[in-house]
Amino acid sequence: MTNGKQPNLRIPGPVPLPDDVLEIVGSQMINHRGPEYADMLDRMTANLRTVFMTTNDAYFITSSGTGAMETALVNTISPGDRVLAISVGVFGDRFREIAEAYSADVTRLDFDLGHAADPGKVREALRKMGDCKAVILTHNESSTGVANPLQELCEAIHEESNALILVDAVSSAGGMAIAVDAWGIDVVATASQKSWIAPPGISMVTFSKKAWAAHERSTTPKYYYDIQQYEDYLKIGQPPFTPCLPAMFAIEKSLEAMVAEGIETVFNRHHEIASHTRDGARSLGLELVPEERYASDTVTAIRLPDGIDGKEFLARVRQDFNVILGGGQKSLTGKIFRIGHMGWVETAHIDEALEAAGRTIRAMRG
Amino acid sequence: MTNGKQPNLRIPGPVPLPDDVLEIVGSQMINHRGPEYADMLDRMTANLRTVFMTTNDAYFITSSGTGAMETALVNTISPGDRVLAISVGVFGDRFREIAEAYSADVTRLDFDLGHAADPGKVREALRKMGDCKAVILTHNESSTGVANPLQELCEAIHEESNALILVDAVSSAGGMAIAVDAWGIDVVATASQKSWIAPPGISMVTFSKKAWAAHERSTTPKYYYDIQQYEDYLKIGQPPFTPCLPAMFAIEKSLEAMVAEGIETVFNRHHEIASHTRDGARSLGLELVPEERYASDTVTAIRLPDGIDGKEFLARVRQDFNVILGGGQKSLTGKIFRIGHMGWVETAHIDEALEAAGRTIRAMRG
Repeated sequence: MTNGKQPNLRIPGPVPLPDDVLEIVGSQMINHRGPEYADMLDRMTANLRTVFMTTNDAYFITSSGTGAMETALVNTISPGDRVLAISVGVFGDRFREIAEAYSADVTRLDFDLGHAADPGKVREALRKMGDCKAVILTHNESSTGVANPLQELCEAIHEESNALILVDAVSSAGGMAIAVDAWGIDVVATASQKSWIAPPGISMVTFSKKAWAAHERSTTPKYYYDIQQYEDYLKIGQPPFTPCLPAMFAIEKSLEAMVAEGIETVFNRHHEIASHTRDGARSLGLELVPEERYASDTVTAIRLPDGIDGKEFLARVRQDFNVILGGGQKSLTGKIFRIGHMGWVETAHIDEALEAAGRTIRAMRG
Repeated sequence: MTNGKQPNLRIPGPVPLPDDVLEIVGSQMINHRGPEYADMLDRMTANLRTVFMTTNDAYFITSSGTGAMETALVNTISPGDRVLAISVGVFGDRFREIAEAYSADVTRLDFDLGHAADPGKVREALRKMGDCKAVILTHNESSTGVANPLQELCEAIHEESNALILVDAVSSAGGMAIAVDAWGIDVVATASQKSWIAPPGISMVTFSKKAWAAHERSTTPKYYYDIQQYEDYLKIGQPPFTPCLPAMFAIEKSLEAMVAEGIETVFNRHHEIASHTRDGARSLGLELVPEERYASDTVTAIRLPDGIDGKEFLARVRQDFNVILGGGQKSLTGKIFRIGHMGWVETAHIDEALEAAGRTIRAMRG
């Protein structure tokens, strides 16, 4: 539990860190071109592959999750390449915007906020497109608490097309199962401050052989995010550029702990706390944003009752209960709140957050 | 001083951090879209401008210093723009490579390793080029311990051309004076793990009005490094993407401390410890790589005597004395060693490093 002074930070990342991780985050700097770093990088790369159930290459980049999404695109597409951008919210839109910024020929497939992507509609869109270089999609749309049915979507894409599958798994990976090899995902992107129980600063990607083949033909300009640099330096146990050591130290520990615990157990734990959160919200008489079967295991989005102002609600929850919740974005601003439950989360964290939400709503109703 | 277990880390970044900073680095996460972050960002932006003696805009980006160099270029140039790339070593070459990756029409002006850039030669190159959109240059070449005469170089550029001046000050800023406004620097790039007494993870840039005007016309594709996103979010006290909080926390403290101490005093302090390092190296009978007048105040590069193998030297210094020194790069590999003295550095740190170097050389000579 958080102590008296620290707020109960329940946004969908950065996640709060337990004391032992904070101590690791505050470790002394090391030489990132020395043997100690090489050993750490080697272990981390192996463990990251285990979590992603893949033999694909895996890399650590100093950036936010958006940098990893950009890495997925700039290494695989060229200007004019046809890209299907599936969006169920803010982060799907962002992935599309990055593709557009790099002059992809983007076909949009948007779903209403709070809904998941429909594999049937994806099939239909791919059939209409004929030629498609890459499909970009969000696994977990943290703005609406929707988890897309990633395995079904990958199956649909593989059936209809030879397109690369680039997945924004920033807010799901580490908390929800992603079988990179079994599902045929070419690039998966995630970031340290989510389920990885680490501070922000490092993003992570996997690259398939097919993604590497696309890299060879890609004419998109790139330097910092050119995955070739990460591969070349990985061979000598180094990063191409000075890495965010505090986040690396924390991810190293988390990856070790996840592999030791067993990744199925980690994912089940996330599913259980998510169910507990959803049950708690419903028992307060509140409605979830997504349908239950598409509800995320890392963040729960909950509708505020009519007449409750979202901005005031968040401020009062913070002020009166020392609990920090996420708000709504875009058209959901002021209408929903979100509870993060990824990484280090105990039942008491959730119960405290739900109690704060319930009491604040009752108080605001007068 | 470092304690018994911790090595004396004397590479030119990441710099070692004192215990009180490590404690700050290991602080609990906060909501990067909340009021606490907004307050911090506001103070940090103001203090960063003070250190750079500028009224220009200033931004914090989650990346290494190379990301800040890329930010300088992708926001100001377009494919085909003529760029003069001044290089005195590895990092000057990197800046040029980034410009080439983004299809600039690059004119190279290289100086021999260990030498500084000559303002007369820069004038000559600009006269020959006629048209030049941007000059890119390194302030402090940490691979050779050479500090370019930045003020003179800026004067030469302004006299001959209307080109933008983009400066890689990754390893000098915060330890050596850079008068952004007085010298007319359009973009300056630096990174947290150098003189800023912070871990790696955050890079910093300033942007002049002229750089912003160039941004309006730039057709280079960009997203994560599009400075417009940082500006738009700064207006609402937020980062566009989840920032590396541990580095931000540490830089906040450092900037406050630097402004409180007085930036002239900070720069003088760096100059004094650099002089002390150079005197110490000479008293061991060793030769500096650069001429004294171009010797860096943040890192000292020292030639190894003939017959001393650099790789073995570094390994023995580490093993026998728990001191970690920097090696040589490119054609200087195995021939020099480097001592970092930026940020938190005490005379005892330097004396211990020099003693370790001296005793190792004597032992290796047998």
